[in-house]
Amino acid sequence: MPFHDFSTYRAVDRLSQLARNPHDLTAANGLSPQRMSSFKSSALGFDFLYGTQRVSDEVLTALQELADEAGLVETFIAMKKGAVLNRIEGYASENRQVLHTASRDVFDAQPLAPEAAAKAKAELAKLQVFLDSLEDGRLVNERGELFTTMVQVGIGGSDLGPRALYLALQAYRRPGRSVRFIANVDPDDAAEVLRELDLATTLFNIVSKSGTTLETRTNEQLIRGALQQAGLDPSRHLVAVTGEGGPMDDPARYHTSFYMYDYIGGRYSATSMVGAVALGFALGYEAVIELLQGAQAMDCVAEQTDIRANIPLLMALLGIWNHNFLGHATVAILPYSQALSRFPAHLQQCDMESNGKSVTRAGHPVQWQTGPIVWGEPGTNGQHAFYQLLHQGTEIVPAEFIGFRSSQYGADVEVEGTSSQQKLTANMLAQSLALAMGREDRNPARAFPGNRPSSILIADRLTPRTMGELLAMYEHRIAFQGFCWNINSFDQEGVQLGKVLAARLLDRMSAGRGNGEVDPLVETVLRDVGLV
Amino acid sequence: MPFHDFSTYRAVDRLSQLARNPHDLTAANGLSPQRMSSFKSSALGFDFLYGTQRVSDEVLTALQELADEAGLVETFIAMKKGAVLNRIEGYASENRQVLHTASRDVFDAQPLAPEAAAKAKAELAKLQVFLDSLEDGRLVNERGELFTTMVQVGIGGSDLGPRALYLALQAYRRPGRSVRFIANVDPDDAAEVLRELDLATTLFNIVSKSGTTLETRTNEQLIRGALQQAGLDPSRHLVAVTGEGGPMDDPARYHTSFYMYDYIGGRYSATSMVGAVALGFALGYEAVIELLQGAQAMDCVAEQTDIRANIPLLMALLGIWNHNFLGHATVAILPYSQALSRFPAHLQQCDMESNGKSVTRAGHPVQWQTGPIVWGEPGTNGQHAFYQLLHQGTEIVPAEFIGFRSSQYGADVEVEGTSSQQKLTANMLAQSLALAMGREDRNPARAFPGNRPSSILIADRLTPRTMGELLAMYEHRIAFQGFCWNINSFDQEGVQLGKVLAARLLDRMSAGRGNGEVDPLVETVLRDVGLV
Repeated sequence: MPFHDFSTYRAVDRLSQLARNPHDLTAANGLSPQRMSSFKSSALGFDFLYGTQRVSDEVLTALQELADEAGLVETFIAMKKGAVLNRIEGYASENRQVLHTASRDVFDAQPLAPEAAAKAKAELAKLQVFLDSLEDGRLVNERGELFTTMVQVGIGGSDLGPRALYLALQAYRRPGRSVRFIANVDPDDAAEVLRELDLATTLFNIVSKSGTTLETRTNEQLIRGALQQAGLDPSRHLVAVTGEGGPMDDPARYHTSFYMYDYIGGRYSATSMVGAVALGFALGYEAVIELLQGAQAMDCVAEQTDIRANIPLLMALLGIWNHNFLGHATVAILPYSQALSRFPAHLQQCDMESNGKSVTRAGHPVQWQTGPIVWGEPGTNGQHAFYQLLHQGTEIVPAEFIGFRSSQYGADVEVEGTSSQQKLTANMLAQSLALAMGREDRNPARAFPGNRPSSILIADRLTPRTMGELLAMYEHRIAFQGFCWNINSFDQEGVQLGKVLAARLLDRMSAGRGNGEVDPLVETVLRDVGLV
Repeated sequence: MPFHDFSTYRAVDRLSQLARNPHDLTAANGLSPQRMSSFKSSALGFDFLYGTQRVSDEVLTALQELADEAGLVETFIAMKKGAVLNRIEGYASENRQVLHTASRDVFDAQPLAPEAAAKAKAELAKLQVFLDSLEDGRLVNERGELFTTMVQVGIGGSDLGPRALYLALQAYRRPGRSVRFIANVDPDDAAEVLRELDLATTLFNIVSKSGTTLETRTNEQLIRGALQQAGLDPSRHLVAVTGEGGPMDDPARYHTSFYMYDYIGGRYSATSMVGAVALGFALGYEAVIELLQGAQAMDCVAEQTDIRANIPLLMALLGIWNHNFLGHATVAILPYSQALSRFPAHLQQCDMESNGKSVTRAGHPVQWQTGPIVWGEPGTNGQHAFYQLLHQGTEIVPAEFIGFRSSQYGADVEVEGTSSQQKLTANMLAQSLALAMGREDRNPARAFPGNRPSSILIADRLTPRTMGELLAMYEHRIAFQGFCWNINSFDQEGVQLGKVLAARLLDRMSAGRGNGEVDPLVETVLRDVGLV
């Protein structure tokens, strides 16, 4: 696999030249109907429109060259086959394979990473038995009642992805089944969730790969206390998703344990048991399979070398164009779907934790920008909030719109000749066009500069299958960008220093602990804020 | 009031010079205990620590000079007294006063804007009667039962602020009372909320100043349909918050109407009836009064001319230092409080809709950066998500931490010698220190550059009163920045173009509508995405 520095590619030079005079969307014919139709790619359930990006045919050609020169697809396929990509050459690093794609490579007779796929299949079989036993009454509470609620207890990747998917698909949940989430070490997070629950009919799914995550361990202890106080037996109410053989792999404490493996990073674990247990509980096993089928289908689309046939790759390259060549620091994810309300938060983690790096895979400081700041909220809500800045602010925000032709519930109302769903999609398209076109006005406060880049991704309906496609699309877009920037997108060394300092502060805060030597800075800050 | 261009201030020159060599937090003694103690301000319930910003005494002196030269406090006091600040000189504009502070200037005998304060008092009196009648059974449903749920139906400022405050304070809600929210025109938003409700005991609070907001009108119609289908009388279940004399001020359709006034912008309306009705329903009238008292007290703090005594002003100036002089495009709001989970989304609107502008109050294009991109999620969750980029990414993100010494519920657990609340606050302080200090390491992937700016805001406990203080603190920080950039922070002309284009698309999508002429671009885009 070619691991070269981003700055050494010929296509990067070419793109730098092209970026001096990027396509002007406000010019005469800058946004023609022909352009809109021609800058469109389709794969599986999705159409992707990018005529509203500031790209020309020359730019697309150079982006294709960049993809080829950097061997992005080649590296991606190597990843799927189990290459040890989570690594920094010459330095201590995790040295792991990156095999989240194996968690859904369970439909082909010949999976690319057979061992990991076999493990994924075994966990799915275990999940099916577990869900059946919840259904047929073999797995019930102390009083012989069925469980109705599952609380997922996890943080980061064990929370954001599963939560985003659950909210995305809760329209399809089975009658009488629901899922809640506890993540934060803030005791008010657990208190607020527990306050509303009937503990007797609640299962808690404790999710931590290492089994040592501070927040999750703490919340588990709080939950065990609450169950005991209610006269319930924690071992009947707790299941676990954790590393095989780790400290949480303990049948005495969890009546069922599902396994996750070190070759799947937390932020890529939504299609492993980390997401599948809660989704299966809420939606049923079939919906989990559909989600995985969608993701797996997109995993195959991402193997195409033609960027116009490979939406995740094209999205990655357009993002690089906006970030590295046009200089935009952020990217906004704007789903026109209330069900996707937390999908931007999931992508925020997946992208920023993957690509917020400053060291190459060879251990050298990067000399180019890596991952952007990712943020966003659903439309149309955002139109009444921060879109003012998108249209008329001094910061340019590349926007990625995501929408669907049909609603999930189908409970719609026609007002002034159009349905709510039509209003929703019309607004999405209108925003993309407005950002691109702008508008002149003799009142300067009512003029719009336009020429602001965006793209549109649209599918028929948000279902388990399209959700799987969408999830994998963004996962691979992130991976392709990391490959291109020559960074390790699969570690997270940047979280360590805060942990070390927090431990030092907690040593001082806990009575009778610490080694006696008190750091004067720690002492002062704790005193200044009134915590000691 | 001095309305000068930002670039003309002497202090701006001075700050540009100082920004060439900003304070280095990683230098020897760059983050001393003395510095931490000295760069601290306190007001009301809050301590504000900013030793972890890249400022020196010289920078603070220049920021004070900027505040004085630009007359920021003078303009603020004029605003509170009713100056017509929502205006662009020489061009058509809203030409309105900006009097959200009057909505809580109801405790002094001599309010600064007597007429607006009197109106606010009258609405509060109306609210008290309304809440009493819900309590004592004068206001009940068709079957004589008490109402238990209120659904707030509004979007933008009628949603984000009230929702953020409700989530912040729901720990204090009255037994059996809760609030839900419907905002999006996405029909799945309403469908999901309505699915869970007992309509018979639900009140719907329809909030729209103009009475013409598309999303809110559409959702109201959907709700009326659902009530009728359930055999319920909509006029018994709907209340309104709207402009006096507007299309929604109609006793035949809403059994109670509360008023909002055009001198309070949506994003500043959380302390008016827009927020007070739902909060009063959930928490009781007294909690609303405490919220207003907190906000009003901060409104007075913001009148101080000494920047070290005026936290909102100091925050505004530090933000300007980071944005205009150090060049950071975004600011992250990071509350270490799950209850504040949606406060960043509220501030995202309040800030970006206020200051995402490119035209001065004199109608000239700005020649400097205005409002930054505001985003954020609660800690410790974010630590397991996007903090990787904050610590080791190539984008620098100024961070604003917000925390509390005590939890709301007081339901805590001690694990390894410290409580969850201690872990929460220790992590917050540790993150601020880690961003500032960095750490050298011979493994480049484990090295932290440090020198990344942040600040800490901390209070005892998140209560209605401290929430009011915090809300007003950020409102005024935003206003001070807008005054300094010489922009109109109180209009939102940038939302218009999208509306116009959406209407054009909907004309084409609705059968038998439109004027017959079809815009070829609109036609193509609709066809390309399969919507016609």
